[in-house]
Amino acid sequence: MTTLENRPGPVDFDSPEHQGKLAELYRDFDAVGMTPLWRTREGLMPHHPEPRAVPHLWRWSQLYPLAARSADLVPVGRGGERRAIGLGNPGLPGDPYATPTLWAAIQYLAPRENAPEHRHSQSAFRFVLEGEGVWTVVDGDPVAMRRGDLLLTPGWHFHGHQNVSDTPMAWLDGLDIPLVAATDQGFFEFGPDEVRDKATPDRSRSERLWGGPGLTPVSAAGRPRPSSPLMAYRWAHTDAALAAQLELEAEGQPGVVEPGHAAVRFTNPTTGGDALTTIRTEMHRLRGGTRTRRSRTSASSVWQVFSGGGTVTMDGLDRTLEHGDVFVVPAWTEFSLQAADGSATDGLDLFAFSDAPVLEKLSLLRTEVSN
Amino acid sequence: MTTLENRPGPVDFDSPEHQGKLAELYRDFDAVGMTPLWRTREGLMPHHPEPRAVPHLWRWSQLYPLAARSADLVPVGRGGERRAIGLGNPGLPGDPYATPTLWAAIQYLAPRENAPEHRHSQSAFRFVLEGEGVWTVVDGDPVAMRRGDLLLTPGWHFHGHQNVSDTPMAWLDGLDIPLVAATDQGFFEFGPDEVRDKATPDRSRSERLWGGPGLTPVSAAGRPRPSSPLMAYRWAHTDAALAAQLELEAEGQPGVVEPGHAAVRFTNPTTGGDALTTIRTEMHRLRGGTRTRRSRTSASSVWQVFSGGGTVTMDGLDRTLEHGDVFVVPAWTEFSLQAADGSATDGLDLFAFSDAPVLEKLSLLRTEVSN
Amino acid sequence: MTTLENRPGPVDFDSPEHQGKLAELYRDFDAVGMTPLWRTREGLMPHHPEPRAVPHLWRWSQLYPLAARSADLVPVGRGGERRAIGLGNPGLPGDPYATPTLWAAIQYLAPRENAPEHRHSQSAFRFVLEGEGVWTVVDGDPVAMRRGDLLLTPGWHFHGHQNVSDTPMAWLDGLDIPLVAATDQGFFEFGPDEVRDKATPDRSRSERLWGGPGLTPVSAAGRPRPSSPLMAYRWAHTDAALAAQLELEAEGQPGVVEPGHAAVRFTNPTTGGDALTTIRTEMHRLRGGTRTRRSRTSASSVWQVFSGGGTVTMDGLDRTLEHGDVFVVPAWTEFSLQAADGSATDGLDLFAFSDAPVLEKLSLLRTEVSN
Amino acid sequence: MTTLENRPGPVDFDSPEHQGKLAELYRDFDAVGMTPLWRTREGLMPHHPEPRAVPHLWRWSQLYPLAARSADLVPVGRGGERRAIGLGNPGLPGDPYATPTLWAAIQYLAPRENAPEHRHSQSAFRFVLEGEGVWTVVDGDPVAMRRGDLLLTPGWHFHGHQNVSDTPMAWLDGLDIPLVAATDQGFFEFGPDEVRDKATPDRSRSERLWGGPGLTPVSAAGRPRPSSPLMAYRWAHTDAALAAQLELEAEGQPGVVEPGHAAVRFTNPTTGGDALTTIRTEMHRLRGGTRTRRSRTSASSVWQVFSGGGTVTMDGLDRTLEHGDVFVVPAWTEFSLQAADGSATDGLDLFAFSDAPVLEKLSLLRTEVSN
Repeated sequence: MTTLENRPGPVDFDSPEHQGKLAELYRDFDAVGMTPLWRTREGLMPHHPEPRAVPHLWRWSQLYPLAARSADLVPVGRGGERRAIGLGNPGLPGDPYATPTLWAAIQYLAPRENAPEHRHSQSAFRFVLEGEGVWTVVDGDPVAMRRGDLLLTPGWHFHGHQNVSDTPMAWLDGLDIPLVAATDQGFFEFGPDEVRDKATPDRSRSERLWGGPGLTPVSAAGRPRPSSPLMAYRWAHTDAALAAQLELEAEGQPGVVEPGHAAVRFTNPTTGGDALTTIRTEMHRLRGGTRTRRSRTSASSVWQVFSGGGTVTMDGLDRTLEHGDVFVVPAWTEFSLQAADGSATDGLDLFAFSDAPVLEKLSLLRTEVSN
Repeated sequence: MTTLENRPGPVDFDSPEHQGKLAELYRDFDAVGMTPLWRTREGLMPHHPEPRAVPHLWRWSQLYPLAARSADLVPVGRGGERRAIGLGNPGLPGDPYATPTLWAAIQYLAPRENAPEHRHSQSAFRFVLEGEGVWTVVDGDPVAMRRGDLLLTPGWHFHGHQNVSDTPMAWLDGLDIPLVAATDQGFFEFGPDEVRDKATPDRSRSERLWGGPGLTPVSAAGRPRPSSPLMAYRWAHTDAALAAQLELEAEGQPGVVEPGHAAVRFTNPTTGGDALTTIRTEMHRLRGGTRTRRSRTSASSVWQVFSGGGTVTMDGLDRTLEHGDVFVVPAWTEFSLQAADGSATDGLDLFAFSDAPVLEKLSLLRTEVSN
Repeated sequence: MTTLENRPGPVDFDSPEHQGKLAELYRDFDAVGMTPLWRTREGLMPHHPEPRAVPHLWRWSQLYPLAARSADLVPVGRGGERRAIGLGNPGLPGDPYATPTLWAAIQYLAPRENAPEHRHSQSAFRFVLEGEGVWTVVDGDPVAMRRGDLLLTPGWHFHGHQNVSDTPMAWLDGLDIPLVAATDQGFFEFGPDEVRDKATPDRSRSERLWGGPGLTPVSAAGRPRPSSPLMAYRWAHTDAALAAQLELEAEGQPGVVEPGHAAVRFTNPTTGGDALTTIRTEMHRLRGGTRTRRSRTSASSVWQVFSGGGTVTMDGLDRTLEHGDVFVVPAWTEFSLQAADGSATDGLDLFAFSDAPVLEKLSLLRTEVSN
Repeated sequence: MTTLENRPGPVDFDSPEHQGKLAELYRDFDAVGMTPLWRTREGLMPHHPEPRAVPHLWRWSQLYPLAARSADLVPVGRGGERRAIGLGNPGLPGDPYATPTLWAAIQYLAPRENAPEHRHSQSAFRFVLEGEGVWTVVDGDPVAMRRGDLLLTPGWHFHGHQNVSDTPMAWLDGLDIPLVAATDQGFFEFGPDEVRDKATPDRSRSERLWGGPGLTPVSAAGRPRPSSPLMAYRWAHTDAALAAQLELEAEGQPGVVEPGHAAVRFTNPTTGGDALTTIRTEMHRLRGGTRTRRSRTSASSVWQVFSGGGTVTMDGLDRTLEHGDVFVVPAWTEFSLQAADGSATDGLDLFAFSDAPVLEKLSLLRTEVSN
């Protein structure tokens, strides 16, 4: 054993003898799977997040036609389960992940198609850029999908989709697949081949029970749930809430996040927290001409342009935003938005989702606002 | 000092000598304010709640004309503050309290009258049986009051009322005055003599910010509040939620509290808990002919018939229910409701408030359901 | 109905006619139990707490002999249950209550006596000024009572006491009897006539399971309890924690409440909150010569001098403090302590209990520190 | 656009034409980073966790000498920061990770050596198998490290180590490096080159303030912290708590996890939850001869044999356990332990850490007990 007494004197670290011993030590380490921190610390423990994921933007004008083409070539059915095409961050080759925690995909359902039921531990949502005619059936409850709506499929809820219309429909899917994969928490189970309830009601049962503002069924009260029991957040409400914030700002009242920038978070009425346990979902509206403060956060996020146009700036690089475009903001990326200010496309509406609830629960989230 | 060695032998407790010593001891106790538990235990610690408050019902047909008469004789103004007339439980003489924790009153505002602003640590709400034309201004936010609405004034929020119409308006006020008095927590402060904002908007600012189902302003997200930021719960939403529960029941779906009995709780969207910290507020609807299970709870409550008719049974005694009637259910009173089942007044809608949140937070609430 | 059109013109409020109508109205109000707020508002809703309870101090030198005398005259047994003598605040005549929410009593058990088991919804604790030899058996777990210890009996836990020694023992009992009475939440049940487990272990089972700092049995982990599962807080630990705070202060480190003033709160290891749901319990130590800041809080409290001496100042009036003295600080009373600074009785140790957890949970607690 | 009307008729999916179109589609997908779910679903969303990490065991008799050799060859200092050697799971080549969320390492400090201060967002602990003489200085508070102790370094607390003795010391380090890396949450900052406080007190300040069972400094009360303010959990307490559970079992009292199996969790006294936000830490003791139930959980864990011997069975494969051995239980691995039952090494004590708190907070944790 090395004690102070028999410890070697000053060593010539550069001597061939020492280098030889060191090489031998490292070989012996390798043989039992040991890795010295002193050779890996910088990579393992960076001074600030250095995500492999990169800022990236996909054009809707490119995504949608590709999704549509696949409908002619690939059926939807058991096994493949969904005609969903994941958007892979160029910084994360090999994995079809938007960020290390988030999966984003275009899902496309052709006229009269049906996506079979299944359930999984992953949490999911659908955000509808345009179109209608599909009902997603969540634990037996048919939920209409329409423009601007956010539809939830919390973890371990059975769900399938059916398109009852004569037109195809595409939407944005968001899941926590990468997070669940990275932590080995995936469970999956098949359900019926067709959705179990083919009714096409205007309002889902979850909305009828939970859709009144501040109203909780007494039969369910006093029992917080990890995710929202409300499966649909309708555009009419979201739009009204965003409009109200900007009107209140004009009246000199609080409400907006910052000047010209309204935003609502989709929340779980049983707790007031995020609608999904692992994914934050929000809708943002920028008044025409508004530029947001530059900020960066350790959460990663994915955004979709819902309407209007403008510019996103990530780590100093501008990208023009058009209808339906999807972009990724990796962790700790300097980020700001600018809304177009013209007659044609005044203002900018964006849907956003992020892993912020995960990081908040683990006391890891950091945010900096620059100006 | 008494030790085992010198302790007196068997005592003749009935001897005059012993009785004399005992009387002297009790006099000496009295002199320093000491009271033996062995002489008071049964009163202090009953086997189950033995409330002094009694089941009681007031007829709206009697309350309203009395309130109206007071409008001709007594002005509303600084000092008296409100034309509110408290309903005193006959079992609690001296205190104008409905139950040991709850205050219930009829408030009446004549045409064009104004009730000055003040704030207090007590939590308050207004429930509107009928009428409209009054705006209550809560921390500067004018909130319209209309039939079926529940309006909140959480503790320490400034509030005043103005009637901008040509007709009087009366409503039910509920407060936690007795609880706050019993625990010495009363703080009170005068505000302006007239409401600070005389605007009469259709929707209050609180509704514009917080009235979307499951939608939270990002500028306020992640910070739970002790009471609801939503100041108005509108009848249209409440009515729809109750109707939906009964429809879902008819479809074989969950939602109702028990067969034929729908109920919603008014909740705080930032937590999912009760809208007020100390008062539970609920709306109940019984399908025509429905009889609820008999139950009793250690919470005390006050109910008002909103529409329809029926019968309330408290500790075995039936009372007929008519429009606007207010009744009190003391703690641990056996209680059930029966809805009328006729062509004229089918079904029964009731507003209810109770001290249940207080007891839940203190882990004291007990409930028994009989059948 | 009164409308703006037919409303009476300017009224001569002092006219005999008007006064007559008013008197008639008030008689009619009375008949149905209605009380106008405008005649009672000031009493019901004061500008700040105006407790009927008054600052008061009982000398231990007076209390103890009286309690001892009762042991010769009154047996302990079923029905009376306890030889406990409540301390009644002079401002609350009729009720043997220390404050509107708290009950404080001297309990006295003669040599070899046994107090029968019972349980109640009220929460209780014992604080031991001096002596030993009694075991309190809480839900079957015998807990030794010794000088400086705090022993808990959370609500609805069976408990009885037995004195296995040849000397009497007296201690301070604290309960929430007034709060539970005021809210009609009292439930009570008799248990065995003698304690069910006559063992006299040095450490209770609750301490063996829960008495390791920061150590939770895995079999019970992840399930917060409303009150502490640890039934005894031993003086050796309390003393060491207080001493450490003062030592840390001397080392320039944080820990004390204010200069010269150390304090620990007895907490529930499953939540970090108060040990009892409705009663805060704390031990305070003042270095000799220390004067605390003047403060007032809407909580009411009861204090007992454990050792040392000094002065308490309540609403400007000084009272000397001696060993065992019990004093009451009503809500919103200006309060400070001064520790003696002499060779004989240097410093001041006090046990304190209050209703602060109740008020915190209801968002009613207010505190002001003056200097 | 594809509509029902113009949709292609039944397709010959195997035709060369169709296969060609498909290949072209997949090339076009690739070009924009799109990946079809139907080709990846099984990998992305398995039916149950299929961790790449494998059950593995390292012999202490192998680890310790390797660590000791490195002390002769590699100095500890700024940059490398620590003489810590991570244990890499053979199923996770390339990453020196024990499981996808946990990092485990042997850290070795030679006599009189000093490891410089730094802080990072990663949470860390040290568990001491044997030896003493090192103080870890956590946010300026010197904490002695001794056999059986668990020492915490919650995220973003500065910390350095100094060995003041004439003998080397080695211990087990556990961190959430992989989780923080996978979610891009790493922040790191250098502190002083030598520990800022070279005092070597027996008890750290954190223990003096927070080490009393159920005792909370009033100056810090009422403010839950995400991780424990108590930096050291001493072996004497842990050992006593484990012994007590087995003794209570022998007395017929509850406490153990299952027959013959005692376990304590290290918890945060301000909340009752896990001591660290992202890592569960526990100590387990098996009575000689005890075999635990077979179970599996979606959490992954790392265990170290503290004393005694026995067998671990993972997915049906037995491994003998000796002093100091470290083994990994991947997610969803069937797992049981058996304690030796001989005169020499009766019973088995193990330290364990896992990612269970992460999964609990995200509502992802699943556990199955087989028999």
